[in-house]
Amino acid sequence: MMKVSKLGEFGLIDLLAKMIADAKVDRLAPDQPLIGIGDDAAVWRTDGSLELATVDTMMQDVHFSLDTITWQELVWKALAINLSDIAAMGGVPEYALVALALPEDTKVVYITELYEGMIALAKQSRTAIVGGNISRAPMVSVTITVIGKSLSQDILRRSAARPGDVIAVTGYPGSAAAGLEMLTKELKFKPEVTEYLKSAFLHPVPRLAEGQMLVKHGIKAAIDISDGLIADLRHICEASKVSARIDVEKLPVHPLVKGSFGEKARGLALSGGEDYELLFTGPSDAINRVKAELKCPVTLIGEITAGAPGKIELIDASGKAIKVNKTGWQHF
Amino acid sequence: MMKVSKLGEFGLIDLLAKMIADAKVDRLAPDQPLIGIGDDAAVWRTDGSLELATVDTMMQDVHFSLDTITWQELVWKALAINLSDIAAMGGVPEYALVALALPEDTKVVYITELYEGMIALAKQSRTAIVGGNISRAPMVSVTITVIGKSLSQDILRRSAARPGDVIAVTGYPGSAAAGLEMLTKELKFKPEVTEYLKSAFLHPVPRLAEGQMLVKHGIKAAIDISDGLIADLRHICEASKVSARIDVEKLPVHPLVKGSFGEKARGLALSGGEDYELLFTGPSDAINRVKAELKCPVTLIGEITAGAPGKIELIDASGKAIKVNKTGWQHF
Repeated sequence: MMKVSKLGEFGLIDLLAKMIADAKVDRLAPDQPLIGIGDDAAVWRTDGSLELATVDTMMQDVHFSLDTITWQELVWKALAINLSDIAAMGGVPEYALVALALPEDTKVVYITELYEGMIALAKQSRTAIVGGNISRAPMVSVTITVIGKSLSQDILRRSAARPGDVIAVTGYPGSAAAGLEMLTKELKFKPEVTEYLKSAFLHPVPRLAEGQMLVKHGIKAAIDISDGLIADLRHICEASKVSARIDVEKLPVHPLVKGSFGEKARGLALSGGEDYELLFTGPSDAINRVKAELKCPVTLIGEITAGAPGKIELIDASGKAIKVNKTGWQHF
Repeated sequence: MMKVSKLGEFGLIDLLAKMIADAKVDRLAPDQPLIGIGDDAAVWRTDGSLELATVDTMMQDVHFSLDTITWQELVWKALAINLSDIAAMGGVPEYALVALALPEDTKVVYITELYEGMIALAKQSRTAIVGGNISRAPMVSVTITVIGKSLSQDILRRSAARPGDVIAVTGYPGSAAAGLEMLTKELKFKPEVTEYLKSAFLHPVPRLAEGQMLVKHGIKAAIDISDGLIADLRHICEASKVSARIDVEKLPVHPLVKGSFGEKARGLALSGGEDYELLFTGPSDAINRVKAELKCPVTLIGEITAGAPGKIELIDASGKAIKVNKTGWQHF
């Protein structure tokens, strides 16, 4: 019998999403969701506004190692990756519920550290922690649900990219993957580099204000690049039934990543996951307005094209196609 | 340093709830929650109605064994225990998000079975499955978040019991614990008994309609007895700053539990967990109206008294106090 490792994470999600859609159980509530499974967050309409919800898990020895992350960093990241899903819809976070699984010999002081990390990001993002659950388990995991809303009737979707749209990305993709590689391979760099890479991997800052700004400027399509730039651009292209072309020369690689990883840096920027930057598409005038207004780096890296749904072309400086051999980060 | 096993589940929850309250991070959202940590579900006000959310985890070899539960039963129960929290607030479930953790060698057919179980209960309870997350893990766990609403401005709380209130409970407490004991000790009974006990433990039916009916009849205080009748009555008494007296003779023990567990049955009814019945308190006329209208068994088992917060007295048929030596089910 087929194992989930063979089907892969995205294959498994597709299968389950299809089961749920076929059984129509995503349509059971009195107010049908606008968006169910298959975007960064679920969206439904309440009296007068749009409500959003998302859930994500950080699992010991899958998503983190207690050798290289503090308890504060762990929960910061666990909350940040959920807030990033809300950011990718252009939403505002409101409430969080935290399900914690812990071995029974866990020291209480670690748990209070963990809550300090969560309190810090909750305050910064103005997210109220209203509930939770604690369970005994053989290893540590943190599953957080964030519920939020949209300030307007508009949200960012994966399915709204159109041929002719310019593709843009915030920040410096690949930095988190470089940080992970440094930590797992115990690579030694100058303190400044080590600090930047570690922070990129362990301390992502969700692009909440940026996501809301995108909605304000009329951008319709966005995703957070948690699975890697190419993999997440492919999610957009599949959902929007379009192709995309990326000018690899234009990829914003951070100088400290370029300096420490050399030729490998571009591959990290294309396929490294866990950046929690926003990738978005729209008409070039809207994209340029956003770029002018946002304080974080915004780089135009390519274009949405009419073509086979989900097809991504990588183009080098001379306009030649580059073969894609890495497709991003999957959980199975 | 102190370990979480020493502090215990309730001690740990109290500690974390205090940290969150002290940091005021339960008060960050624009609409302050009416109820944060410390009830069956969180509650906040949206435009015109009350919204509820709760999260709960089923962890392999802590809450279930794959030797004695099918994948369909596992996810039914994982969703049911969350729906039960919504029921204990008198709410209506609307949306569910499912975070699944799985070993990579899990057979795909098991996952589709799991989703069939979830789809069945989602349909029955009219809960839309709108999102989720799948993570690799060394063992199976299912964490479900349910978001719902209240049909009126009233909800059931742990903190609303008042001296003079009659205490009532739905169904037959202890049946789930009897089922667990049968499964773990491989006890042999007649098929009819085996079927009843297995179903009580593996296939709880959340008391959603009953919870909503309680609100309609003006009942203010309720809890689901997932931790055991005494432990959960104590949660009510602590939150309401009252004592309680239970007439042990009145406890509704199911004849099949009494027949198969004899003298032990009463202990299971008092301290066995995972029944997902509702325990509620109120003026005797309201309780009697509820009892007359509800189709499920409702038994009056005691009274709320003015006394030390959280104190529970057990009284035998002759009115003598019985010593409590078991206090319910804790996770650490």
